[in-house]
Amino acid sequence: MSETGFKRIEIVTEALRAKQVTDILDKAGATGWTMLPVLSGKGHHGVRHSGDPSGISDTVMIVVIASAEHAQNIMAKSDAILAGRTAILAVSDVTVIRKDRF
Amino acid sequence: MSETGFKRIEIVTEALRAKQVTDILDKAGATGWTMLPVLSGKGHHGVRHSGDPSGISDTVMIVVIASAEHAQNIMAKSDAILAGRTAILAVSDVTVIRKDRF
Amino acid sequence: MSETGFKRIEIVTEALRAKQVTDILDKAGATGWTMLPVLSGKGHHGVRHSGDPSGISDTVMIVVIASAEHAQNIMAKSDAILAGRTAILAVSDVTVIRKDRF
Repeated sequence: MSETGFKRIEIVTEALRAKQVTDILDKAGATGWTMLPVLSGKGHHGVRHSGDPSGISDTVMIVVIASAEHAQNIMAKSDAILAGRTAILAVSDVTVIRKDRF
Repeated sequence: MSETGFKRIEIVTEALRAKQVTDILDKAGATGWTMLPVLSGKGHHGVRHSGDPSGISDTVMIVVIASAEHAQNIMAKSDAILAGRTAILAVSDVTVIRKDRF
Repeated sequence: MSETGFKRIEIVTEALRAKQVTDILDKAGATGWTMLPVLSGKGHHGVRHSGDPSGISDTVMIVVIASAEHAQNIMAKSDAILAGRTAILAVSDVTVIRKDRF
């Protein structure tokens, strides 16, 4: 049940683009992802705070644990994933323990 | 103060099971953990959104930074940790800087 | 656009100290950071729950993706970053994909 060779992909992007990004992840074969709320962030466009009434500056973090193959598919789509204003994608190695198979 | 050989364990599970999971972590010797809210997630049971009035589909992410020894204790309990419907456990290597010892 | 040698630095600290910590990150050259809300956490001072009216026990997680050079600057300031009661800093290796340069 403990499997090495997996990748943890962390994406920070605008909430307005979140569905677009998870659609890309789904098409790339990701069997799962987790979306976390973000309080505030700083990037190339300055500091952004979530929670203003328009919601236009809201940001989310999407975490994907993917097999090496699915991770490669996802990274091949990085241009589309990173199309927004606020966008970063960071990849690290993880070992996964899980009941079901990826 | 900078110590290598630590593990970062990331667990995504149902909010209803969170206390059960942190009890297992505490018994395994984890000196600390951090619980983050989750907006939505996709897994083997489809997409789940937090925030419905029942709270029944709420999910949390629990992050544990543990010594190699404590991490091994935690991973030995992975069956109990992953007993819920929504559950994944991913482990990565980290270097830790901290005032207190683990 | 895919660059290795980056560090992911994860800091858990009190919400009241968050601005102090991000100021240190900015001065150390970090081009960006992401601040996440925390529901609850356990550390050397026991269990803390966010959301009490005073806000005094609120905790945040700050994630920084930094070049090796900026990460070294940040870690050189770890004493100031970890000055609070609740504080931990964990560092891992990441590969970064991003439109802009760090």
